[in-house]
Amino acid sequence: MRQAISFITIGVRDLDMMKNFYREKFKWTPIKDSDGIVFFKVNGFIFALFPEEELAKDIGISNNGEGFKRMAFAINFRSEKEVDDVFNDLEQKGVKIIKRPGKVFWGGYSGYIADVEDNYWEFAFNPFLELDANGNVAAHQ
Amino acid sequence: MRQAISFITIGVRDLDMMKNFYREKFKWTPIKDSDGIVFFKVNGFIFALFPEEELAKDIGISNNGEGFKRMAFAINFRSEKEVDDVFNDLEQKGVKIIKRPGKVFWGGYSGYIADVEDNYWEFAFNPFLELDANGNVAAHQ
Repeated sequence: MRQAISFITIGVRDLDMMKNFYREKFKWTPIKDSDGIVFFKVNGFIFALFPEEELAKDIGISNNGEGFKRMAFAINFRSEKEVDDVFNDLEQKGVKIIKRPGKVFWGGYSGYIADVEDNYWEFAFNPFLELDANGNVAAHQ
Repeated sequence: MRQAISFITIGVRDLDMMKNFYREKFKWTPIKDSDGIVFFKVNGFIFALFPEEELAKDIGISNNGEGFKRMAFAINFRSEKEVDDVFNDLEQKGVKIIKRPGKVFWGGYSGYIADVEDNYWEFAFNPFLELDANGNVAAHQ
């Protein structure tokens, strides 16, 4: 597994209020602010704001406040096959698979696993996300 | 504010179990595994594991499961003065100050603020943390 993180997504209650906080107080500029999600490109990865109910739904869990930190990590790969390979490897190692990889509505391919304390990791191929030679997030279309 | 994140720290219940998960399943190698904290250097920042009670104590809040996501972000700066400047700026903007910056036991200087949904951000100067010219985390002594 590449020792790198592509996204940190926090589940929010009020997307506009949270977006404005980071825009106005931190003076951060989003690279995407549409489709009900906000991306701030930071150093080599994306800090994302996404409604917590949507995030829970995307993972495939209930947002019941128990265990779920209302946030998730993602590691992006360069192809669907790389995503499949990671899932196969982790499944053989006994890692808890939450959602098997498959095509998703936004045009990519992704699935989720949980670590031993129910922190959620998405492994994804996203054709709209440009990774540089080091695997850092370079741009998002 | 620099649009960059230096640390993502997740609060854990069982540090050894969580460390072993990332070592054995993800095959990640820590750059620090001592003093009751584990650092994995990823792309330009650090993914840290820290007992959730300790994290709450460090922030200065109670770990009551309400609101607190049992995780925190940090942005590291190059001097104590830069940290003070950030706090002064944010305080003037009405941002909720959780812990004013000051010397901390591990030899650095830090404080915490909260965003509008109680996600915690530490702003710190850490003399043991090397930042490269782009502000990415280069190394930790």
